Amino acid sequence: MDTAEAMAEIVGRRRPRSEALRGVGVTNLFYEASTRTRVSFEVAAKHLSADVVNVTAGGSSVEKGESLLDTMRTLEALGARVLVIRHATSGAPYLVAREFGGSVINAGDGRHAHPTQALLDLYTLRRHLPGASLLGRKIVILGDVLHSRVARSNLWTLTAAGADVWICGPATLLRGFDAWAAAGVGGSRRFTVTSDIATALRDADAVMALRIQQERMAAGLLPSLHEYAAAFALTAERLALAAGGCLVLHPGPMNEGVEIAPDVARGPRSLVTEQVRNGVPIRMAILSLVTSVE
Amino acid sequence: MDTAEAMAEIVGRRRPRSEALRGVGVTNLFYEASTRTRVSFEVAAKHLSADVVNVTAGGSSVEKGESLLDTMRTLEALGARVLVIRHATSGAPYLVAREFGGSVINAGDGRHAHPTQALLDLYTLRRHLPGASLLGRKIVILGDVLHSRVARSNLWTLTAAGADVWICGPATLLRGFDAWAAAGVGGSRRFTVTSDIATALRDADAVMALRIQQERMAAGLLPSLHEYAAAFALTAERLALAAGGCLVLHPGPMNEGVEIAPDVARGPRSLVTEQVRNGVPIRMAILSLVTSVE
Amino acid sequence: MDTAEAMAEIVGRRRPRSEALRGVGVTNLFYEASTRTRVSFEVAAKHLSADVVNVTAGGSSVEKGESLLDTMRTLEALGARVLVIRHATSGAPYLVAREFGGSVINAGDGRHAHPTQALLDLYTLRRHLPGASLLGRKIVILGDVLHSRVARSNLWTLTAAGADVWICGPATLLRGFDAWAAAGVGGSRRFTVTSDIATALRDADAVMALRIQQERMAAGLLPSLHEYAAAFALTAERLALAAGGCLVLHPGPMNEGVEIAPDVARGPRSLVTEQVRNGVPIRMAILSLVTSVE
Repeated sequence: MDTAEAMAEIVGRRRPRSEALRGVGVTNLFYEASTRTRVSFEVAAKHLSADVVNVTAGGSSVEKGESLLDTMRTLEALGARVLVIRHATSGAPYLVAREFGGSVINAGDGRHAHPTQALLDLYTLRRHLPGASLLGRKIVILGDVLHSRVARSNLWTLTAAGADVWICGPATLLRGFDAWAAAGVGGSRRFTVTSDIATALRDADAVMALRIQQERMAAGLLPSLHEYAAAFALTAERLALAAGGCLVLHPGPMNEGVEIAPDVARGPRSLVTEQVRNGVPIRMAILSLVTSVE
Repeated sequence: MDTAEAMAEIVGRRRPRSEALRGVGVTNLFYEASTRTRVSFEVAAKHLSADVVNVTAGGSSVEKGESLLDTMRTLEALGARVLVIRHATSGAPYLVAREFGGSVINAGDGRHAHPTQALLDLYTLRRHLPGASLLGRKIVILGDVLHSRVARSNLWTLTAAGADVWICGPATLLRGFDAWAAAGVGGSRRFTVTSDIATALRDADAVMALRIQQERMAAGLLPSLHEYAAAFALTAERLALAAGGCLVLHPGPMNEGVEIAPDVARGPRSLVTEQVRNGVPIRMAILSLVTSVE
Repeated sequence: MDTAEAMAEIVGRRRPRSEALRGVGVTNLFYEASTRTRVSFEVAAKHLSADVVNVTAGGSSVEKGESLLDTMRTLEALGARVLVIRHATSGAPYLVAREFGGSVINAGDGRHAHPTQALLDLYTLRRHLPGASLLGRKIVILGDVLHSRVARSNLWTLTAAGADVWICGPATLLRGFDAWAAAGVGGSRRFTVTSDIATALRDADAVMALRIQQERMAAGLLPSLHEYAAAFALTAERLALAAGGCLVLHPGPMNEGVEIAPDVARGPRSLVTEQVRNGVPIRMAILSLVTSVE
């Protein structure tokens, strides 16, 4: 968090450029579509003067069926010292990290984790909560928790920061989380699971709405987007249940009118754009820290 | 035009590099396929030392259905101060410009406009017409005017420069232009509409052929490419009707043998390659001017 | 080879950067999927401070049906002085080179040639063979020679370096090579063709396995991958027939378990990763040499 603050100072300059990663090869290896995360890492790496290479699944040897590990070995041999990887399969970056000689940064793997997103969410919350502390703050994660790597990474991150985390959504999208809540994150840190949105939002200090994807209907997990929105959309009325000044977050891209009402998405409490903005200093900090320990 | 000439001097150097946009984020957001325009903007921005990011619809969050405005807000939050946008929907860049904090440059929107193309066409014509003036010069835009954003932008640009503009093509591809011609561009500047190619080309100082697309046949607007070529292709015979030294332009990519004969496309009067070349200083000038007024 | 060695010294530096191509436009024009070759050229060009532009068939005017020559003319007009081209059609880079004002580098064309791959293979072999010499060394190219541009370029390169080259594979994948072997590469340099893998591998100093593609089954050239592997996979048992310390190469991407056994692919004799690594100094040398003779 401290390093990210120093990086934010660099980003705010007229010419946002540090020499910290001069000569360091950073390769973005994205097997899934992404704008914000890919561009965020690219901008962060360039601000640090790294040599950035972008590789996406389309137009690469992945089309020829090259294995993930072979692609990693190829990119390493071509000079990558940091590999930023997004992959549809949970665990893929960890498999890569076992054999890669440099540093691997997980930019989102399946439903498993999206740690840089959780770190930027933490950074964003700290900037807006009194005393820059999450200790005892009630933070609600709302929506399709089951399929969300953002939710999982935030459970780890926000409970570690001492927050009182609640997850809320239709029972079909919370499956298995009761057991995790009982066991505790990291074996000790508890969180609360509920499908009662009024209880979840009551006195909340921050609420993070998650993207609902069309595919969930086909899988029979939701009756319709309309019914989901009626029961769980983050509306101004529901937000009124929360604490005064309750913060609103969303990892994006938003389906306005589905999981979040447009006036809330763009309202005075919304930190959605700031989340994106904070992604750059957070990723600069991560890039800087992983390369400095090598 | 003056700024573009200064930029052309930079492009001609052994090391074509200015520091004018050092530290400025330029993002190319292309929702449609493009080589010349996208690379032209990328090269122009790099010559000015800008930090360039490329985003295309494939491999981005657009695949997840992210809205245009959300994508814009994301890119702005990630540091874009100039957004160069190509979109299949007419008006898309103007919608974006209403909310974007920096400058938006339209790199082609639907059938509506392609202003940087028209500016490079103007620049190219000025370099080859006596006195660098279009005043009273007869300039013919030939072909599928109906679907052409290049034609629309050139109507605005060339009539503003005082040219006597004629548009010519099959009646099905000129639909609605009679009324516009009668009303005048900008309410006062007239142009002439005809399907008689001999009349159009007679004594013309320049003729710009437009790309004919296969899709027009399916829509029933043209009987066949062969019949189109027989009636409207820019051939050496037809060009002989024009003034001596009549200039030949085409926005590319060309269908040689359809809207333009190969010997004309590559002939001594053809400025097609120079048009592409002039795109770089024109876009450098635009990038430089929009960022200097911020 | 000497220039590549000088380049390897640059690559090995903490900050691998030379000013040799400062201000030189290098455009990678890839009509086929590629990771290693495209990234290798991009990294090589950036190490030399060139201005690199990437163009792939998807998302470019190629989708609109623009011809190869028009695309070349466009890229040249936009400032490309070096064009690195990969194309599915044999001969495409040579067609382009006839009209391009700068230098064209063939990054792989159809089944015809992949000269930079052969040069990096030569470089890799020289680094590991006693006296850095291939003279009289027995080198086996194993597998789908018929469809392999790597095999063809290596036949030219390795025989020119004085090696005793053997090609080996199923008869269906060697069709036509008997006549070439009899005529000699370049009209004089002989090589040997055989489907007897034991004879081919006996006392070999190096063996290069080639990728077997699924498509060959559909074409009726191979009964099944399983049968291919049983008869021609490069296994530890077969490798034991070769000379002690026989080197193992593969142009990648590998189908482990098909044309090469995993323990051989990753074994102590394998130079596969080094081949990729050596691609960077080789391509730096090529870029440097072609631009210095202009």
